[in-house]
Amino acid sequence: MELAIDKIRSHLKHVDDIISTEPADLKAHGYSEWSSINIDTLPVAVAYPRCTEHVQAIARVCHEHRIPIVPYSGGSSVEGHTSAPFGGISIDFGYMDKCLRFRPEDMDATVQPGLCWTELNEELASQGSNLFFPIDPAPSAKFGGMIGTNCSGTNAVRYGTMKDWVLNVTMVLADGSVIKTRRRPRKCSAGYNLNSLIVGSEGSLGIVTEVTVKLAPIPEQYSVAVVPFPSLERAVSAATAVIRRGVPVAALELMDEIQMRVINNAGTTMPKVWKEVPTLFFKFAGTLGTVKDNIATVRDTIKEYEPEAFEWATDSEEQARLWSARKESLYSLLSLRKDGEQLWNTDVAVPLSRLTKIIQDSKKEAEEFGLLATVKGHVGDGNFHENIFYDATNAEQRENAETLVKRMVRRALEMDGTCTGEHGIGLGKKDSLEKEVGNDTVVVMKLLKSALDPRWIMNPGKVFDL
Amino acid sequence: MELAIDKIRSHLKHVDDIISTEPADLKAHGYSEWSSINIDTLPVAVAYPRCTEHVQAIARVCHEHRIPIVPYSGGSSVEGHTSAPFGGISIDFGYMDKCLRFRPEDMDATVQPGLCWTELNEELASQGSNLFFPIDPAPSAKFGGMIGTNCSGTNAVRYGTMKDWVLNVTMVLADGSVIKTRRRPRKCSAGYNLNSLIVGSEGSLGIVTEVTVKLAPIPEQYSVAVVPFPSLERAVSAATAVIRRGVPVAALELMDEIQMRVINNAGTTMPKVWKEVPTLFFKFAGTLGTVKDNIATVRDTIKEYEPEAFEWATDSEEQARLWSARKESLYSLLSLRKDGEQLWNTDVAVPLSRLTKIIQDSKKEAEEFGLLATVKGHVGDGNFHENIFYDATNAEQRENAETLVKRMVRRALEMDGTCTGEHGIGLGKKDSLEKEVGNDTVVVMKLLKSALDPRWIMNPGKVFDL
Repeated sequence: MELAIDKIRSHLKHVDDIISTEPADLKAHGYSEWSSINIDTLPVAVAYPRCTEHVQAIARVCHEHRIPIVPYSGGSSVEGHTSAPFGGISIDFGYMDKCLRFRPEDMDATVQPGLCWTELNEELASQGSNLFFPIDPAPSAKFGGMIGTNCSGTNAVRYGTMKDWVLNVTMVLADGSVIKTRRRPRKCSAGYNLNSLIVGSEGSLGIVTEVTVKLAPIPEQYSVAVVPFPSLERAVSAATAVIRRGVPVAALELMDEIQMRVINNAGTTMPKVWKEVPTLFFKFAGTLGTVKDNIATVRDTIKEYEPEAFEWATDSEEQARLWSARKESLYSLLSLRKDGEQLWNTDVAVPLSRLTKIIQDSKKEAEEFGLLATVKGHVGDGNFHENIFYDATNAEQRENAETLVKRMVRRALEMDGTCTGEHGIGLGKKDSLEKEVGNDTVVVMKLLKSALDPRWIMNPGKVFDL
Repeated sequence: MELAIDKIRSHLKHVDDIISTEPADLKAHGYSEWSSINIDTLPVAVAYPRCTEHVQAIARVCHEHRIPIVPYSGGSSVEGHTSAPFGGISIDFGYMDKCLRFRPEDMDATVQPGLCWTELNEELASQGSNLFFPIDPAPSAKFGGMIGTNCSGTNAVRYGTMKDWVLNVTMVLADGSVIKTRRRPRKCSAGYNLNSLIVGSEGSLGIVTEVTVKLAPIPEQYSVAVVPFPSLERAVSAATAVIRRGVPVAALELMDEIQMRVINNAGTTMPKVWKEVPTLFFKFAGTLGTVKDNIATVRDTIKEYEPEAFEWATDSEEQARLWSARKESLYSLLSLRKDGEQLWNTDVAVPLSRLTKIIQDSKKEAEEFGLLATVKGHVGDGNFHENIFYDATNAEQRENAETLVKRMVRRALEMDGTCTGEHGIGLGKKDSLEKEVGNDTVVVMKLLKSALDPRWIMNPGKVFDL
């Protein structure tokens, strides 16, 4: 390992601080506050490449010496994607954080893995462009990790997920060779779809050093509506009715009564006080005429589920105020943590018809365990999060939280769903993946990995084990 | 080979006519009128499985004896996907043509590879469902081939391509093992995205025996508009302006002046006579309010490109009449073929800003070669078809047509586009694929194939060569 670090330093001696072995650096990359799972081992070094060629040089040395490579960008993974169970080198893309090319006339941009999606959108806005990148995971997420987990967020019901926005990636393979998956057509049937194989592969097939993404026109108008319901069942039924009618909503989010209470208690949206009942948050987008028409269609569709109100806004201030509850939901949760208290943030997705049942069952179980758990759902996609508070210093509570998550996953699989709609497998859900797709399918995934990474140096220990 | 056929007959002796070696059968499967490329070799046998287990039994024998397997469903590939350059067994899914399960509440259906997408939609309609499968390649296309080529069609600008609608596939691998890629969540980040790897792999990684697809709500209203322009440049500029503004059109098609003339000459849309100028065909869909609003936005967006008219319809009869030109475009071409005349139907896709230029250059070149060629474009996606008439008995004409196609592909690649937006590589575009993505990327594709099909028995000779 020391030899390898020396080799990297010597190959890249013209680059300042290309590699660090400072304990604080190792800790910052191998341990994460965001993650529901952390382990004792840390990376042995952290590399700071400035370009694809640096990554290539690092990969060649690592390949020669069979040293694990763990890519690192935003670091906000919740499933331990950036941890280093076998040590090795964490590659931090902090310096590779640029938008390299923006082509407004083609509606695309080429960016580096260390760029944050919010930064890209700020840059486009500062240039006066009417385009934006529409996939919206946590604001801290960066393109590298967004590709790794096939991320999404509240916009997925309208815009799909990360895989739907990637035109090509440049990647460094395990042996240091560099490939580009495609050129820039917006539609393509030429050869295997390597884009969609890489997106969601959690750094286990190669390291993305550049990505060209499609951009979307910013809608001319937005509106937001907040709709409280007398029961969870009615709220979810109303949401799925909207989806089944095909109303092109821009977002369709659910928060349960506990989450609404948490927001009131945290006071993050003061002076607004929310009804503490299951609530749907709609976003509408398009021309003014379309937005008005969509709102009318939604009102008509959901009325049989007896909403308790329909509060909506067109001016941007009022919109921000109404959407603030959704936006502040995670921070509200974090602000209410007591000393030693942790938040386990997990997600599953199920076919639409099963959504009410799995949310109800999961909530009931949390109550039985005496744990505070809130539900936030990207209900338009059948995807939801449970955020479970537990005292990390209390072994029983930690175990109960773990049991809750496992049972929720089991339930999702029984309903023909998935153990994760947008967070990925990482360290935390390897067992669940095998239960979900079966051993034979995992074997196929491993065959594909072995074909590209025969020495298993690319983020080993994630997705599945050797 | 004879031994293998005997083994298949003996393993599946309870199945009537499981395998045929009739010359007419071999010809019907190895040669295609639709294809721009045909070869002299034919499959040695054609198998007619009724279920996944039959395919599995056939694959096992073929694997043991290293016999190529060529899947066959609709047979309307234009790039020689169903031809058998190394002989082997064609697997015809003619008997596996059912919709196995329809789950309206989850908006999905599980179908067999021999089912036609139009038949699925007829079946859904006959059940009174408001759902449909929105990907619309040629009406003869079946799910097997649609997966093989990552097909699309006029709806792609709104609904994406085949890969966007597949929830899971059941497939038989080269060694006869059977895997299912996923369960049925509409959003998933669990493990590698095998769905998107299989879609577009042209039967070279495994044989799909079942697929679960998402369904979409049928829009409440449609409208169609036909808009002739004074020049190709203005027509394409108007189309891209609509896309850049983000108007959610349901389809956006271009036909050039020659294609419009062909339709008039063929008389397939009589008594309607069309202006013989570059023409855009719009489809709008949604609620009545949204449709009206979209039409207004489109009119406003395109007016600076000086359309010569804006003919639109809301009632379904008038819509069908206006859309008929687009719908009948291929049949108009076919009906005008003289004896011995062939039609070479090819497609490329380029970034939006280059679309005018590539269409202009390709048309000019056809003219210089003295060949009749028409252009039809899925212009919203930067994708278009050139249909070239040539006399197949005239070596020079055939060569000229080939040169035209090659140059169009070269031009698309120079513009950072692709050699095929929706038809696939097949036999016909293997050289183009290598030029498009580079040898190193093709090597990665081959590594993936070899990992799943080490004996290269799955549709060998397609996509790339060993």
